[in-house]
Amino acid sequence: MTKRSFAQHALSDWMKGTGPDADIVISSRIRIARNIRAHPFPMLATNEQAREVMERLTSVAGNGRLNGLGQFDTIELSELNELERRVLVEKHLISPNLANESRHGALILSENEAVSIMVNEEDHLRIQCLYPGFQINEAWEQASRIDDIFEEVADYAYDEKRGYLTSCPTNVGTGIRASVMMHLPALVLSQQINRILSAITQVGLAVRGIYGEGSEALGNLFQISNQITLGQSETEIIDNLYSVAKQIIEHERAAREKMLEDSRVRIEDRVYRSYGILSHAMIMDSKEAAQRLSDVRLGIDLGLISDVPPQVMNEMMVLTQPGFLQQVFHEKMSPEQRDIRRAELIRQQLISKSDHGGVST
Amino acid sequence: MTKRSFAQHALSDWMKGTGPDADIVISSRIRIARNIRAHPFPMLATNEQAREVMERLTSVAGNGRLNGLGQFDTIELSELNELERRVLVEKHLISPNLANESRHGALILSENEAVSIMVNEEDHLRIQCLYPGFQINEAWEQASRIDDIFEEVADYAYDEKRGYLTSCPTNVGTGIRASVMMHLPALVLSQQINRILSAITQVGLAVRGIYGEGSEALGNLFQISNQITLGQSETEIIDNLYSVAKQIIEHERAAREKMLEDSRVRIEDRVYRSYGILSHAMIMDSKEAAQRLSDVRLGIDLGLISDVPPQVMNEMMVLTQPGFLQQVFHEKMSPEQRDIRRAELIRQQLISKSDHGGVST
Repeated sequence: MTKRSFAQHALSDWMKGTGPDADIVISSRIRIARNIRAHPFPMLATNEQAREVMERLTSVAGNGRLNGLGQFDTIELSELNELERRVLVEKHLISPNLANESRHGALILSENEAVSIMVNEEDHLRIQCLYPGFQINEAWEQASRIDDIFEEVADYAYDEKRGYLTSCPTNVGTGIRASVMMHLPALVLSQQINRILSAITQVGLAVRGIYGEGSEALGNLFQISNQITLGQSETEIIDNLYSVAKQIIEHERAAREKMLEDSRVRIEDRVYRSYGILSHAMIMDSKEAAQRLSDVRLGIDLGLISDVPPQVMNEMMVLTQPGFLQQVFHEKMSPEQRDIRRAELIRQQLISKSDHGGVST
Repeated sequence: MTKRSFAQHALSDWMKGTGPDADIVISSRIRIARNIRAHPFPMLATNEQAREVMERLTSVAGNGRLNGLGQFDTIELSELNELERRVLVEKHLISPNLANESRHGALILSENEAVSIMVNEEDHLRIQCLYPGFQINEAWEQASRIDDIFEEVADYAYDEKRGYLTSCPTNVGTGIRASVMMHLPALVLSQQINRILSAITQVGLAVRGIYGEGSEALGNLFQISNQITLGQSETEIIDNLYSVAKQIIEHERAAREKMLEDSRVRIEDRVYRSYGILSHAMIMDSKEAAQRLSDVRLGIDLGLISDVPPQVMNEMMVLTQPGFLQQVFHEKMSPEQRDIRRAELIRQQLISKSDHGGVST
């Protein structure tokens, strides 16, 4: 693996895998925030102190301790140009904070990009594990193993009463953020989504759209995560998220079945129109792309479209973000040019992904 | 030719031909209204008188006088069921008036359906000649020959001062209605159409949409015809229509060129999106079908779509009318069922008409 291979493909290798309930849960993610006791937190650290933290934490990958979990590569943020950083953000492998504001920031990235470990982000250490489908427990087990490995070399900032200490108080305690990214088109179409989202927030979970601004959820993708890190054990946090997500899956599945029963031809019309437009349009903004890709993905998951693989939406959602588009076409673009290039890329992808460029109905 | 062959094909044989300026002028039409002096006009005729008129006028086709102009078939309206009448109306071969209100109405129809002669419509005799493209003079010459043939057997109601007498005063004089059906998408898109239409009406011509209700022009199709039949000679009427239509053709062509120059990718986007939707949608109302077929036809005429023949719009505009749809599918349908069948028919047609079901760009 060269250090720049992450910029070549929109779809991380781990995303090509599948998991339970993958028709609704796109991915499961655990993020653990940790800090080293002996060092000031990144915001307060001097450049020298930040460098020391980076060297100490990246040495874990260098000395092979992570080898049992796969191949890892260490990338210092200072080595990357602006576009490469942007691509990493669009793939959700690093945060905008690490991309733009970190001093001596680094990324320890597994070959399949399922594990990305940020150094000198808001906290000294941010361990992120991603799994395809609904595998939040599996993600937690792996993140936990990596946490143990780092703990062997670093004395974590920990307080008996408060738990793990972090830069932002919202992470104090377990330091864990567990989340699932869910595709909920039927709950949106049947206008049940607001009721469900408000119920979710009442049980201590947070919801936000992916790629959308504010509360808008582009492509009917919702990230659901724990709000609380203090006063609950890791297991409680994960069990709570698991059981709520399981209920949402059931609601979405029931809504899809009802839709097919009550108005099959309307759903087919919506899905095939979006496919027809994606495979023919010459101009496409990212909002429309997200909505139509969601329709096509729904069509795949309902068995209405059979010759386009389901990952096509995940891949194209990433591929059609501004940074990736410019990376693919090797040029800076105005928003108007991006809309044209985005349409071009989607047409190409849909034709190459499907057997014959059409839809089998 | 069986008497029912008109119901089998949406596209009359004459429409498969082409003519000058066929990228803008779909067809040219002359209609001549005549009455027999010795008989009361249809509205005032007894059943017996109407029967006599029908026998006298249809005998012209029976005794072979029209043979020099092609094969003709005589159809009495009373032989047709409701659906067959509706199909004839949708193909513009007869008027709704002849279909629904005539007594002893008949149709004398040429094999290629370019000549349709109505007996006992509002007037005793209505001669209609249709030509593909911009051939209004050719249509006039043929209509005039047919007029001469009928005049040999019928003493027309004619007044030295007023000219030919007709049931409706708007036809008195020459009894001629000359019209061209024009496809003007670029003038509509560039919002020049209202200015142009209002200029047209100021020079004594009338404009109306085809298939649309009221002033709405479905599919950007406009029929332009003479308002005046009195006080102008036949030649003046036709020359006036010809020269105005010629100017509109030039305006439309200039608007198309400007569109391609200024915003080629926007036009391509519009055209290909409509193609993508027409070839994938599962539900399509007649208004949307007309608009998208207009887009595709524009794409063909601009050279953006090369493997769909231009007649496809003319054919599908007729084929997707309610009567024809029911004729094709041999069933009575609700409006919702029609929208589904219409979408089905368009998908089938587009796939069978194009080489490989796609668009070559």
